[in-house]
Amino acid sequence: MRLKPPISCFGRRMREARLLAGIPQDKLGVAIGLDEGTASARISRYETGVHAPPYDVANKLAHILRVPVAYFYCEDDELAGVIAAWGRASAIQRRNVRVFVEREIRGEDA
Amino acid sequence: MRLKPPISCFGRRMREARLLAGIPQDKLGVAIGLDEGTASARISRYETGVHAPPYDVANKLAHILRVPVAYFYCEDDELAGVIAAWGRASAIQRRNVRVFVEREIRGEDA
Repeated sequence: MRLKPPISCFGRRMREARLLAGIPQDKLGVAIGLDEGTASARISRYETGVHAPPYDVANKLAHILRVPVAYFYCEDDELAGVIAAWGRASAIQRRNVRVFVEREIRGEDA
Repeated sequence: MRLKPPISCFGRRMREARLLAGIPQDKLGVAIGLDEGTASARISRYETGVHAPPYDVANKLAHILRVPVAYFYCEDDELAGVIAAWGRASAIQRRNVRVFVEREIRGEDA
C-alpha cells in the first residue's frame, strides 16, 4: 500500500522514526491506546499532516518510537539527527555531548 | 505584575527563552503579528499553557526568540540546553557538534 507523502514537519519526522523502528501504522496506533479499528487511519493522518496530535499523544508516540518528543518538531535535519541520537544515548554519553556543546558553543568550561 | 507559573512544557520553555531574550509579552505578541490590544494576553496564555499555539505560530516565536522551534517541545532540560545552544551556534560549530555526537553515540566516523 503506497503511503501518502507527509506535508508537515511532525508527519515527516514521525514517519522517519516509525520506519526506523519497523512498526506498522496499525500496531503503533494500538500501542498508544487507539482503538484497533481506527488506529491505522489516525496514525496515517498524523503522518500526512492532516491532523497534528496533541502534545500528550506526541509524547506517547515518542516513547514507543524511542525518540525525544522534540524530534517530531525539529525542522533542521542536522539538529534532528543530534536529537534522535540523544534518544539512544546513555547518561554518560549525554553528559559528554553537553560538555562538548558548552565548550564548543559557549566557549566556557562546563 | 506577577507572572502566573507555566503548566506546560511549551509554556515553560517559551518563558525561559523570552526572559533570556529580554522581550516583554506585549512586544513579543506584536512581533509575531498579533493585534496590540490582545498581544500580551495571548502570549500569557501560551506561556501559562492555557493555549498551545499552532506549529506555524511556534515557528514565528522561535524565530523572534532565536531558538530552534524544537526547544519549546523539549521536556529534557539537558537536551533543551543543547538545542538552545545549537540555535546560537555557527555552521562550523554545528558541524563539529554533529561529528562529535555521531562518534560519541553511534561509535562510527562521521
